[in-house]
Amino acid sequence: MLLYNSPVSGNCYKARLLLAQLGIEYERREVDVIDRSERPRLLGELNPALSIPTLVLDDGSPLAESNAILWYFAEGTPYLPQERLARARVLQWLSFEQYSLQPYIALLRYWLSIAHITVPQQKIDARKPAGYAALDALERRLGERSFLVEERYTIADIALFAYTHVAPEGGFDLAAYPAIREWIGRVEAQPGYVAIGA
Amino acid sequence: MLLYNSPVSGNCYKARLLLAQLGIEYERREVDVIDRSERPRLLGELNPALSIPTLVLDDGSPLAESNAILWYFAEGTPYLPQERLARARVLQWLSFEQYSLQPYIALLRYWLSIAHITVPQQKIDARKPAGYAALDALERRLGERSFLVEERYTIADIALFAYTHVAPEGGFDLAAYPAIREWIGRVEAQPGYVAIGA
Repeated sequence: MLLYNSPVSGNCYKARLLLAQLGIEYERREVDVIDRSERPRLLGELNPALSIPTLVLDDGSPLAESNAILWYFAEGTPYLPQERLARARVLQWLSFEQYSLQPYIALLRYWLSIAHITVPQQKIDARKPAGYAALDALERRLGERSFLVEERYTIADIALFAYTHVAPEGGFDLAAYPAIREWIGRVEAQPGYVAIGA
Repeated sequence: MLLYNSPVSGNCYKARLLLAQLGIEYERREVDVIDRSERPRLLGELNPALSIPTLVLDDGSPLAESNAILWYFAEGTPYLPQERLARARVLQWLSFEQYSLQPYIALLRYWLSIAHITVPQQKIDARKPAGYAALDALERRLGERSFLVEERYTIADIALFAYTHVAPEGGFDLAAYPAIREWIGRVEAQPGYVAIGA
């Protein structure tokens, strides 16, 4: 199995973390997240969105989008509940992450800590409130429970953890989010945990 | 069952279209998409993201995010395949829509045709290329097949259809996308189809 990967991408990290926890082996091919000119050649036949992570399964079938990869491998394991409503709740949190948290926190992290692009402060400030609103929503949820769904560690936690725990690299201060900080500690204590840089 | 809904929201329409095709009855409560000040009171206990659609099931359980609602109701029906990789592919396209298509096409449609906000042309132009890139990816996929996954109509088609078929309301010209236009006709011909304004 082959993962088109970037060591700095939180979306790729979601796949790497779950695969590590499941003990599944794979090869990695590193893809540039700054210069994207090679992507049509590398990924054109595999993933029309040209995004990473893109995975090629052992039978040659491609699978893209971090949430789809998480779901595919978690199915039938303790990382994805069996019960219908709990499964839908996991998907609710996966969707929330991609739609309401990732676009703001990952973008600022990319500008400030990965591409080191000089961005007008006004553009940075314009994206901060939505990022903090997502952190507020996550804090409210985690203030009431240990993990996002069903009081146990699932792929919902993996998906939200990926960019949230590196939010300070995007200039987001987690000091006012005690429930998030405690949950980060609980995720890092899970069996088979690997760090984003591992 | 109660759906917190907006008649103009494509994300709400995804839920309405599937529920209509499944013949499931529900009540609607309309939520303003322009003035959001009422949302903490209306949705605060139900959905920390304060987004619509938010659904309250018959037993009082809340469920939010269009993809999660689609998945929950499609499970066990012809609208969601049984096979593991096909299911992951459906989720791949649901994720692509929320991450790569919706933010651009829905935002321009909102500005130009819903909120009627006067937006600087430069801000509009800045979002057009990503919207067209998403349409390009969709066109490439649909150039090879009748529906997005497994050659049959699934919730992947419902999710992509919702904002794509109204993309012209956001100033996107579909003339150069013949495969998308033919697929729009195929979706509209499905049993139980209802229009976004219905």
